[in-house]
Amino acid sequence: MRKTDIVVVGGSAAGATAAITARRHYPDKEVYVIRQEKQVMIPCGIPYIFGTLGSPAKNIMPDAMLENEGIKIAIEEVKAIDPAGKKISASGGEIAYDRLVLATGSLPGRLKVPGFEKDGAFAILKDVQHLETLQKRLQGAVNVVVIGCGFIGIEFADEIRKMGSDKKVTILEIAPYCLSLAYDEEFCVEMQETVRKRGIDIHTNAKVAEIQGNGKVEGVRLQDGTVIPADLMIFGIGAVSNVALARAAGIKLGPTGAIAVDRAMRTSGENIFACGDCAEKVSFFGGRPSPLRLASIATLEARIAGANLYGIRREHDGTVGVWSTAIGSLAMATAGLTETAARQNGYNCIAVVVEGLNRHPGSMPGGAPTKIKLVVEKNTGVLLGGQVRGNESAGEIINIVSACIQKRMLAEDIATFQMGTHPALTASPIAYQLVNAAELAIKALAAQRP
Amino acid sequence: MRKTDIVVVGGSAAGATAAITARRHYPDKEVYVIRQEKQVMIPCGIPYIFGTLGSPAKNIMPDAMLENEGIKIAIEEVKAIDPAGKKISASGGEIAYDRLVLATGSLPGRLKVPGFEKDGAFAILKDVQHLETLQKRLQGAVNVVVIGCGFIGIEFADEIRKMGSDKKVTILEIAPYCLSLAYDEEFCVEMQETVRKRGIDIHTNAKVAEIQGNGKVEGVRLQDGTVIPADLMIFGIGAVSNVALARAAGIKLGPTGAIAVDRAMRTSGENIFACGDCAEKVSFFGGRPSPLRLASIATLEARIAGANLYGIRREHDGTVGVWSTAIGSLAMATAGLTETAARQNGYNCIAVVVEGLNRHPGSMPGGAPTKIKLVVEKNTGVLLGGQVRGNESAGEIINIVSACIQKRMLAEDIATFQMGTHPALTASPIAYQLVNAAELAIKALAAQRP
Repeated sequence: MRKTDIVVVGGSAAGATAAITARRHYPDKEVYVIRQEKQVMIPCGIPYIFGTLGSPAKNIMPDAMLENEGIKIAIEEVKAIDPAGKKISASGGEIAYDRLVLATGSLPGRLKVPGFEKDGAFAILKDVQHLETLQKRLQGAVNVVVIGCGFIGIEFADEIRKMGSDKKVTILEIAPYCLSLAYDEEFCVEMQETVRKRGIDIHTNAKVAEIQGNGKVEGVRLQDGTVIPADLMIFGIGAVSNVALARAAGIKLGPTGAIAVDRAMRTSGENIFACGDCAEKVSFFGGRPSPLRLASIATLEARIAGANLYGIRREHDGTVGVWSTAIGSLAMATAGLTETAARQNGYNCIAVVVEGLNRHPGSMPGGAPTKIKLVVEKNTGVLLGGQVRGNESAGEIINIVSACIQKRMLAEDIATFQMGTHPALTASPIAYQLVNAAELAIKALAAQRP
Repeated sequence: MRKTDIVVVGGSAAGATAAITARRHYPDKEVYVIRQEKQVMIPCGIPYIFGTLGSPAKNIMPDAMLENEGIKIAIEEVKAIDPAGKKISASGGEIAYDRLVLATGSLPGRLKVPGFEKDGAFAILKDVQHLETLQKRLQGAVNVVVIGCGFIGIEFADEIRKMGSDKKVTILEIAPYCLSLAYDEEFCVEMQETVRKRGIDIHTNAKVAEIQGNGKVEGVRLQDGTVIPADLMIFGIGAVSNVALARAAGIKLGPTGAIAVDRAMRTSGENIFACGDCAEKVSFFGGRPSPLRLASIATLEARIAGANLYGIRREHDGTVGVWSTAIGSLAMATAGLTETAARQNGYNCIAVVVEGLNRHPGSMPGGAPTKIKLVVEKNTGVLLGGQVRGNESAGEIINIVSACIQKRMLAEDIATFQMGTHPALTASPIAYQLVNAAELAIKALAAQRP
């Protein structure tokens, strides 16, 4: 029987990061990553295979990242975990471990409507062959229907349109507008209109009743009777934690069906940790279970799990939720709670919006109107969330917002933030949107005092 | 005699921001901005007048920014301040004030060598007419010499080259390499080489002995005897606080010759505040006087002064120093102490560097190799400084670093930072440079423990 110090099951964002972190914190321990995939897809890069990148081969996570850290990779299927015996059984035989990290990820959500099993209905698996097949089928397709208008939905739709202007791409969304879990309505509507202007049909309030076709997908019937022709369908409707191995080993699951973990990312199994899409998450705001599944959340959890394997060094403060998307030159990003979510979660809050160019003067090249919305708790002035709409810079501006949220900064802290500015890179120091939004929040809070 | 609540002397970054802040915090107070300039130049935009923008007219700070806040603008020269009488005397007569903010800015530093008064030797004044003259003279010039290879020096040199490839532009720098106050050597050398590759001559260790010419600039003689021909010379050698009014009014000056202020930005004059280039600064690190003069520092001070006019609401934690520059597609940014400065200032520190692409996969368009260097105090793990080299995103990444510095985050806080990532906007969540640099710092600190 093979023996090692640390076994990580799963080689995507969480698994790779847990392994790297373990090696950094415990350089004298041997680390094995066991995964099924010969080549690992960069999860967030998958939509870009179809248009921008051109093939799944261009979206591979390099194994060198692990090998350079002295991590061993085993391409095997794990069949079972034996927590009492401290070993796993894999297709290549058993491996005894001292510490085990479960990073088994998630599986795509399935729509429970008649016909979802028909040929031409694709869930998004993080698998090279599956994606190569999908790519080939997309090349021949004319009518493509994407179910779900979240990030995955709009990114897939836009990339498929880039494959050829003959393609008619339609997104079906059950909610009144797209991206409503990430942004407040004004942001969602702007993104939705942008996607539409790029030639994509979006049906909101669209409830799928049936996937039609004789063995092969031919169309989608909505509950209101509308039928949309489809050669090919893609489901972008979220993910379900992959917990089969953990469940079979008697490891406790949590309220959303994922593997239950404490703040140190320890499971109920002794010396067994979990991180990433397979693990339960708790919100930074109020501490309830969080349904978010993001690669950046997975890697944070992996950095906690990996550092804690031989003694608790880190604890999780709860999931803030920070992510972004881009369609053409329009980027949108979000951190923490939207105004809608804050109210739904029981916060008394105010919201402020500031918009301006992210260059100074505004005629400097490369700039874009940049809008920042901040959501602030009414009694304390604590920042609860932020949304950014702009160009590429939005992807990093949101990380400033995230730092402010995590350190529980007040609007006052942000108003006196010492930012750097440059004509070719940022907004002016007078107009810097984040700081001005904080000032407006302070003014709004002051106006409400008796 | 005119009477008002708040008078702000000076209408550049500090004055405008102080006025806006005062109106936000004290909406029932009347605010007057008194300035000499009919039109205000955006200070950091001045180099871009010559190449990118094409004229000073394209670099005007819009007065609407003040007018929209109900601020009154008076284009007058202030002759004297009477702190006891609570009034100023200006070219349009006296104005009685309740609170006074001095935002009189700085004047360009002068080189004390023979010949600096010759025709064709230009200091950079923030004045439309002066800059229009300079622009005209530059159009006719072939040999242009820029003295000083800081930000202003390289930005001017690069923009002048954009005016015509017939121009021979030379920068003279007294230090062994350019930008050495902002970056550690490796970053400076990279920027220096980039500037050279764009056709600009840089002489380092170059000490100017004499500006030659018969009434009109003809050349520069260095102390080693080299003579560089010059039709036109530009001084980019720092700024001197403009304190004439304050000094004449008996307001105390500080150790660098600027107006002395406390942490609330109050001067020694009752009800008189100061902010921006004319005010003394104290370093965030160790509390000694800081020589930094930046528009972003000026606006922070203005936000403190403006909020404190009728009761102290904010105090200054000391100047962190955050700024950036860009030459072509190469951007560099800095926050806090460089490794060199940290050691010079008495800190025991370690430094770590992480480099990687700021897209994932790396073949996604718009990306650039992004390098982050962090400087961390050895005993506590507190972040002292960061430097970023990359593309446009560097301008906002440095602001994440700045937030971390201001909240006195430890490497450990940054290693568990919850950042958002996106293939088209940022590095991957596994490779995110800031977080990985923090992990390397933790590893380095651990390796040093007995």
